Amino acid sequence: MSTPVSGGVAAPLRVGVVGTGVMGTDHARLLARSVSGAVLTRVTDLDAGRAQALATELGAGASPDGPALVADPEVDAVVVASADATHAALVLAAAAAGKPVLCEKPLAPTLAEARSVVAQLERDGTDHLVALGFMRRFDPAHVELRAALHEGAVGAPLVVHGTSRGVTAGPGATSESSITGSFVHEADSVPWLLGSPAAEVSWQAPRRSSEAAEGLHDPQLLLLRTADGVLSTVEVFLNARYGYDVRCEVVGERGALALAESTHVVALTTRSTGLVRSSAYAADWRPRFADAYRLELQAWVDGARGGTGTRRAEAAGPGLATARDGLRAAAVCDAAVRSMRAGGSWTAVEVPA
Amino acid sequence: MSTPVSGGVAAPLRVGVVGTGVMGTDHARLLARSVSGAVLTRVTDLDAGRAQALATELGAGASPDGPALVADPEVDAVVVASADATHAALVLAAAAAGKPVLCEKPLAPTLAEARSVVAQLERDGTDHLVALGFMRRFDPAHVELRAALHEGAVGAPLVVHGTSRGVTAGPGATSESSITGSFVHEADSVPWLLGSPAAEVSWQAPRRSSEAAEGLHDPQLLLLRTADGVLSTVEVFLNARYGYDVRCEVVGERGALALAESTHVVALTTRSTGLVRSSAYAADWRPRFADAYRLELQAWVDGARGGTGTRRAEAAGPGLATARDGLRAAAVCDAAVRSMRAGGSWTAVEVPA
Amino acid sequence: MSTPVSGGVAAPLRVGVVGTGVMGTDHARLLARSVSGAVLTRVTDLDAGRAQALATELGAGASPDGPALVADPEVDAVVVASADATHAALVLAAAAAGKPVLCEKPLAPTLAEARSVVAQLERDGTDHLVALGFMRRFDPAHVELRAALHEGAVGAPLVVHGTSRGVTAGPGATSESSITGSFVHEADSVPWLLGSPAAEVSWQAPRRSSEAAEGLHDPQLLLLRTADGVLSTVEVFLNARYGYDVRCEVVGERGALALAESTHVVALTTRSTGLVRSSAYAADWRPRFADAYRLELQAWVDGARGGTGTRRAEAAGPGLATARDGLRAAAVCDAAVRSMRAGGSWTAVEVPA
Amino acid sequence: MSTPVSGGVAAPLRVGVVGTGVMGTDHARLLARSVSGAVLTRVTDLDAGRAQALATELGAGASPDGPALVADPEVDAVVVASADATHAALVLAAAAAGKPVLCEKPLAPTLAEARSVVAQLERDGTDHLVALGFMRRFDPAHVELRAALHEGAVGAPLVVHGTSRGVTAGPGATSESSITGSFVHEADSVPWLLGSPAAEVSWQAPRRSSEAAEGLHDPQLLLLRTADGVLSTVEVFLNARYGYDVRCEVVGERGALALAESTHVVALTTRSTGLVRSSAYAADWRPRFADAYRLELQAWVDGARGGTGTRRAEAAGPGLATARDGLRAAAVCDAAVRSMRAGGSWTAVEVPA
Repeated sequence: MSTPVSGGVAAPLRVGVVGTGVMGTDHARLLARSVSGAVLTRVTDLDAGRAQALATELGAGASPDGPALVADPEVDAVVVASADATHAALVLAAAAAGKPVLCEKPLAPTLAEARSVVAQLERDGTDHLVALGFMRRFDPAHVELRAALHEGAVGAPLVVHGTSRGVTAGPGATSESSITGSFVHEADSVPWLLGSPAAEVSWQAPRRSSEAAEGLHDPQLLLLRTADGVLSTVEVFLNARYGYDVRCEVVGERGALALAESTHVVALTTRSTGLVRSSAYAADWRPRFADAYRLELQAWVDGARGGTGTRRAEAAGPGLATARDGLRAAAVCDAAVRSMRAGGSWTAVEVPA
Repeated sequence: MSTPVSGGVAAPLRVGVVGTGVMGTDHARLLARSVSGAVLTRVTDLDAGRAQALATELGAGASPDGPALVADPEVDAVVVASADATHAALVLAAAAAGKPVLCEKPLAPTLAEARSVVAQLERDGTDHLVALGFMRRFDPAHVELRAALHEGAVGAPLVVHGTSRGVTAGPGATSESSITGSFVHEADSVPWLLGSPAAEVSWQAPRRSSEAAEGLHDPQLLLLRTADGVLSTVEVFLNARYGYDVRCEVVGERGALALAESTHVVALTTRSTGLVRSSAYAADWRPRFADAYRLELQAWVDGARGGTGTRRAEAAGPGLATARDGLRAAAVCDAAVRSMRAGGSWTAVEVPA
Repeated sequence: MSTPVSGGVAAPLRVGVVGTGVMGTDHARLLARSVSGAVLTRVTDLDAGRAQALATELGAGASPDGPALVADPEVDAVVVASADATHAALVLAAAAAGKPVLCEKPLAPTLAEARSVVAQLERDGTDHLVALGFMRRFDPAHVELRAALHEGAVGAPLVVHGTSRGVTAGPGATSESSITGSFVHEADSVPWLLGSPAAEVSWQAPRRSSEAAEGLHDPQLLLLRTADGVLSTVEVFLNARYGYDVRCEVVGERGALALAESTHVVALTTRSTGLVRSSAYAADWRPRFADAYRLELQAWVDGARGGTGTRRAEAAGPGLATARDGLRAAAVCDAAVRSMRAGGSWTAVEVPA
Repeated sequence: MSTPVSGGVAAPLRVGVVGTGVMGTDHARLLARSVSGAVLTRVTDLDAGRAQALATELGAGASPDGPALVADPEVDAVVVASADATHAALVLAAAAAGKPVLCEKPLAPTLAEARSVVAQLERDGTDHLVALGFMRRFDPAHVELRAALHEGAVGAPLVVHGTSRGVTAGPGATSESSITGSFVHEADSVPWLLGSPAAEVSWQAPRRSSEAAEGLHDPQLLLLRTADGVLSTVEVFLNARYGYDVRCEVVGERGALALAESTHVVALTTRSTGLVRSSAYAADWRPRFADAYRLELQAWVDGARGGTGTRRAEAAGPGLATARDGLRAAAVCDAAVRSMRAGGSWTAVEVPA
């Protein structure tokens, strides 16, 4: 994968992206335009026209389907951003082909399938080829919060308060998918922040928004206890309306640390409802985590290019989530869903061995 | 109580204050110096020297004890700020004497005693003479938050997040006193904000601060469900170290409302630990709620002076908590303590009839 | 003025208010309802009906005119809040009658008249009876900023940045009245903050708002140099539209101090122009400085009641502006107007001896 | 320069960096690790050992000197980050060789030299090969502020308030170098924000910090009037101590826009001086403008690679400053220095034709 060219510089990593929906398109554009050492060579999508349009825009080729893209000799490494149900097979195919793969969460739709994927990878000794797209691990604000916590800025952590709000629930959202699609980020990020695995979860039901669709309890409140005894409260609210708003505060024995408000410009203007100081909220997660996605892809490309002297320093930075991290997060979500079905009781997180 | 003087102005209300500890001293000074229509005539305390010193400072007299102060003809109305165990008897004595009384929380140390006080007042038809010192009802920030909520600024409320942090637990603090002394404010303010009575409570245990004394679980997390289905999370942390910090956010169907940070001056300075933008936190509740205490006393004095034309408009503003409100808050705390003893299960709030 | 009643408490100060426009009405209501030790006995206004309505609302009497009110034996002390042109005569009349008087700025419409008033007061030895209504000296945020500065929090001050914005210029506003009516507050507050008198002023012309009326240059930028060499920039903008916004930052040798944003509640809501975090601005100066006005009146009443033991401690707090302070501020404004007419040149502040 | 490889992707741009001080090292690392489509092939420095160490770290080669690097066939494009006095010759050499060059400010140490460089480039028709490193044009916050302004969010601009504070002046800093080294950024960014060229400047002297070295007046206040009549105040303070702090507020006819505070994490902690909410300031410009530098280099590399379909969309984004922009900024600084020497009088900005 690393053919030396002039000056000892490794050849760029040729990347293919499976799925050209919102996430896949973002990944493809970042790989083509903003990531060092990568070139985008192939994209594919169930909607062939959409894939071809993106390929043309970015100077890449279009593959007929995911398996073909994975097998293509012009593809050194694969990003999986297709429908959740397709993740497991594509990850296994890429790993079997010896190609690094970055898979959007979830690794698989159910805990059982995720377990089976990880078991297969570990059996084959290919688990080191698989990374999970928990991009918060690369968000500069989360990274700085974690660093301050680990440097002891506020002493031992005791309580975490998380908030995960979006503007409008996507079509077909259910109480379960709110957990496996949104809460899954805290299921990974809270243990990562604290350095302690999730132990048990309790699901609680606030008053239901009248704007939530049938089958969706929204908002939800999740309580998460990690092995270190820290209790986290996580409000997940898909229909918060006012903006995409992710917050986190860690309360410790000697103070508290919180993500700062994420805004570039403050506007002082007259509005119909009064005179206000305002700062815009993002409409969705992309502007909020744009830098995190870029840095995640850069770290993945650096790692995939194989640790030349050039890259080693950066690769030592905050690391990518592994397939096993994906399995752990799936186990937390599984416990949350079981708690919901059991009326909120504390439910143990069971990570398959 | 309202002798007309020149120009139809009612005579000032002559107030006596029982207890000259931190709260009683503050009340006495406010009554003597910052409340319109009141004069401080008597103070008393178990520590006679302390009472006499304050009396001298404020141009008042010292009474030998609480009952003597209540009975004194130079006292038109009474503030009770003595030890919790003395509240019930002093309130009943003042009411029996037909004198308005403002009693610091709690009305009585136990739910049973509080019930018995309210029953007696209602039997005698004197409950209108008794007000409870839930000063948040007069805090301009809480009042503005409640008004915006009731005007529909964010639609129907769904979730409330409350935080109640102090610097250091007082001597003798226990897990129970943390509830009946600190959480009791949210036990009153959350139903008051929402306009819906408390229905059930669940007590949850975060990791315990190593700085908490034996017998004190600190911090605590209380979940409170009101009759409207809204779920509130309340973190109570007596040993938060960094400052006195009361926060409240109400999340509704179309947005969220939160108390703003309460600070006057921002300092940009170099500190040993780095370069920072900082704003000072209060060391305790007094600077944070100074205005609330003053406005509470003003409303109480205005009401006690009896609704002349002059006062009526202001008295129609945000009202004082009643003895029954004190009983309700005590019932919430009682449920919280029962939940704690039961390991955190949801426990119904039972307000005696 | 201080007849002892029971318990040695001084009789309340009987106050009359001349002028029942916006400021006079606020002062009258505060004196009647929120200031300890005062009763409002008389009000008067050119509009007799308006005065009578307020008198009725507040349980006071109406006087036929300012001189009659000043002479009324039911009036111990006078607040002057009538038209600027009437201030000088009323202040002199009250002082001549030996009655304390709190006069809204300005002391007189011109520097020459202000000088003549102060000369008369000093000749008569009655200047101690006169206070000027520079309420920022009682604004808790300004007081805290000044205290931090004087405690050396940021070392020696070097630069001050002031902002004074309103929503809409009043009718008849001119470039001169913008200086004598708005900038006059910084003309007093900057020297008060720094503890150094104003030395010279330079007027600068930003681009003129197309919404400013004929004869009004708006916004304006004033540069003020105090005797200590500190340079202050003050933007005065009457038509800022978005809200009433007074800011101040003092930059020192080791850091900076600034007034914090003044808001109680933050709203996260969807607006037509996007998703925003907003905090309301006041529509005018009254909510912003409500507490300052109350504390100013309280300090004035306390002083006027004559320093009994009860009041001494509080009177030792931040003090009222004197007639001479009013003369100094008028001299700064006079220099600013002269600089404007001279095209912006630095112009010395000349305070009459 | 753009040899097509597989999939029509252009070959990476081979970049050489002259100067491996603070800025040059940052540029070299970004080009090697974080910019798409670039490879770092050569670096050089007066300190050959420093250059070699960086070359080794980044997998590049070391050139003996600037001219050799410019002439090297392994170098397609050049970044000039060496001492100010060397900029002009290196820019002209690169342009003469037909190689794109990104030159750190200033283009030349004096206005006369800058004029001569631009004249030469325009004579040769090579000015399109030269970009100046005014990185604020790529700072996401500045870009968003400018976009909101141009969309009419606050109506016509009237006043701008800029602040440019550093922690400690570098060795040898003088009153002139404070202007040509720090204020030069506002000399470019204010006209860029407003879309109007600088017309005249006035230099004003605040009280001088006792910590400023001989020959350095620090802080300074610059007044800048643009052709549209907008008046800008810019405080430049090299020894502000508390942190690196760049602010900008644009006040318009219907509101104001300001850069938000730039921070990721808020810490609530106890410090020796009290209880504070704090957010860290950067120690210098690198963390504040890290993203701006990366985006600037990316835009420059994209442009240098020549507008394939892949790159066209991004290249249409906010553009690089030209040599003529550098000349304009030098003319503003020249006027500021002349005003300083003339005691602060308004001085016309004269841009050579």
